[in-house]
Amino acid sequence: VTAPEPIAVELGPRSYEVHVGLGNLDATGELARAVAGSAAVALLTNPTVDALYGERVRASLEAAGVRATTIAIPDGERHKNLETLGRIWDRLAEARIERGGALLALGGGVVGDVTGFAAATWLRGVAFAQVPTTLVAQIDAAIGGKTAIDLPGGKNLVGAFHQPRFVLADVRTLLSLPEREYRAGLAEVVKTGAILSSGLFELLERESDRVLARDEELLLRIVHECAGLKARVVSVDENEGDLRAILNFGHTLGHAVEMLQGYEGLLHGEAVSIGMAFATGVSTTRCGLAPEPGGRLLALLGRFGLPTRIPGGLSPRALARAMEADKKRTAGRVKFVCLEELGRTRFENLATDDLAPMLASHMGVNDG
Amino acid sequence: VTAPEPIAVELGPRSYEVHVGLGNLDATGELARAVAGSAAVALLTNPTVDALYGERVRASLEAAGVRATTIAIPDGERHKNLETLGRIWDRLAEARIERGGALLALGGGVVGDVTGFAAATWLRGVAFAQVPTTLVAQIDAAIGGKTAIDLPGGKNLVGAFHQPRFVLADVRTLLSLPEREYRAGLAEVVKTGAILSSGLFELLERESDRVLARDEELLLRIVHECAGLKARVVSVDENEGDLRAILNFGHTLGHAVEMLQGYEGLLHGEAVSIGMAFATGVSTTRCGLAPEPGGRLLALLGRFGLPTRIPGGLSPRALARAMEADKKRTAGRVKFVCLEELGRTRFENLATDDLAPMLASHMGVNDG
Repeated sequence: VTAPEPIAVELGPRSYEVHVGLGNLDATGELARAVAGSAAVALLTNPTVDALYGERVRASLEAAGVRATTIAIPDGERHKNLETLGRIWDRLAEARIERGGALLALGGGVVGDVTGFAAATWLRGVAFAQVPTTLVAQIDAAIGGKTAIDLPGGKNLVGAFHQPRFVLADVRTLLSLPEREYRAGLAEVVKTGAILSSGLFELLERESDRVLARDEELLLRIVHECAGLKARVVSVDENEGDLRAILNFGHTLGHAVEMLQGYEGLLHGEAVSIGMAFATGVSTTRCGLAPEPGGRLLALLGRFGLPTRIPGGLSPRALARAMEADKKRTAGRVKFVCLEELGRTRFENLATDDLAPMLASHMGVNDG
Repeated sequence: VTAPEPIAVELGPRSYEVHVGLGNLDATGELARAVAGSAAVALLTNPTVDALYGERVRASLEAAGVRATTIAIPDGERHKNLETLGRIWDRLAEARIERGGALLALGGGVVGDVTGFAAATWLRGVAFAQVPTTLVAQIDAAIGGKTAIDLPGGKNLVGAFHQPRFVLADVRTLLSLPEREYRAGLAEVVKTGAILSSGLFELLERESDRVLARDEELLLRIVHECAGLKARVVSVDENEGDLRAILNFGHTLGHAVEMLQGYEGLLHGEAVSIGMAFATGVSTTRCGLAPEPGGRLLALLGRFGLPTRIPGGLSPRALARAMEADKKRTAGRVKFVCLEELGRTRFENLATDDLAPMLASHMGVNDG
């Protein structure tokens, strides 16, 4: 087991550690025991991840003397909804998870988001922990306590801030990710570099072959660095004031595209990649981003095989309306994250009336 | 308008005031404006309360320049569920309630609980306020930030601690309560006296005629005193440690009875009255409560026309199982609130295996 020092998320009484390692999945039981003691816990996962890692995690829990009930959540963002949540709550009642118990999320962002929200609300709040197994979850979603479900009216409209008690990221689980999902995760890695660390961005450019080949040691370094950057942002700004909101770079349009496609077709990271391409254009025209770094960002997305074009069939007007429904919006204006240069951002308040023309211009079509 | 000084709930950054008065409903708009500014708010209420007070509250909001969308919640505890919550979330999306907006709960405990939980989770938490119009809500449920919905598996199993930004209790709204609902509310008033204030308890005994006649000035005094006691408990113990848990006197069995009856038949206060009668018996046999004050408690419940007998058809075993499902339980033991004397409580840890025999003995039946 290779494991650097745990990363601290500093939030006073809600502080916790992020354990990034290679082969450290077997430490889950010991960490869970420290949280739940002898109380029953629920292990929430999806069938795919369960088949790959469920037994190992259950063995680790059992070895540590933790009683666990497994609750399966169907795969995919379209199941991050009220129906899944209701079924989880019913299963928690059946499993008699008590106030001293805990929920463990083993899987990607969907499992983590819905498990965290179930934990935030079960008995008015019980402990939970994140054991992320996708790249997006390890570097971003599992850290910071944002939990949510989607509604027909929009993504993540319902949720809670509820911090996990620990995050355990075994980078080796990334080796089993389908190629497309792995690359979608790279979109968030690129985002992290673009908004927070030009050094990380340059590393990705320089080592793109090894990144695509999933070199273990390099992945460990990248996940550790991204998780550390995320932890620092969350430590300063737990409840999404301005600092944390910069993490939404590429997400305003990305969420709109996902919503209009009914969360089918594109993966979240792919939608974010498309959103970053649009945000790069806005950054160039409105926020003084030079063409060269903008071009490098687009090129790196391309190198990782990520889409940058808005899917056919989506009109500027429909996209603009969907962006208006996003919750990062107040009184007719969207708070848009711009790049000024690689590693530095600022907010640009866009009038929602300007969105459709800007999208039309970006897409090279009429504002129809 | 008669209004004593507002009562302070002292919770640091989450502090707020409880405004108890006669005819102060028209102050809603001004208080809401201070919370939501020019953002859109949602007024949640049920059809009965809406018909009585909806227009007055909307007029007050309009006069203060607050834009409000009314969302109706069906009447009754059996609608405090996932389905109602899902419909509220969808309506909040339609009404475009933003992060700076707020939800207002106009009604009894059901409206308050579900509105508070919707506010705790909408966009990961928006402001809300309580405008309680029932006796139970004015003296208890609206104060303290406990929000919840019920599941088929038990009452209030899902929820959040989310403090309101203000509570406005117009005691005059109690004059329109149906007699039975008013008396059910008196059960919680009696409970408050029994556990926290022998002075209040004696006032209720002495003035029981005026209480039943709903004398305005007396009601103002009683609501103000109960709200003040509740505010003090919450200020010391926001998240239900030991102090706040004493408010559950009579509720462990009360919830079990409600659950087994599918939240139909008995009102909440009536179930609590039945629960208090059982708790009085337990207090006498296990916690050293003298027979005389125990008898006075039963007599006062009787004076207010409240039920004290467990409904026919419920077996001790079924009740015991339902009590075990209650969330005030850890590892095979129920934390039961006992009276030592009027105004003083302590916890008695009851083994769940002892519950059925104790209930059978209380009911004078076999432990079947």
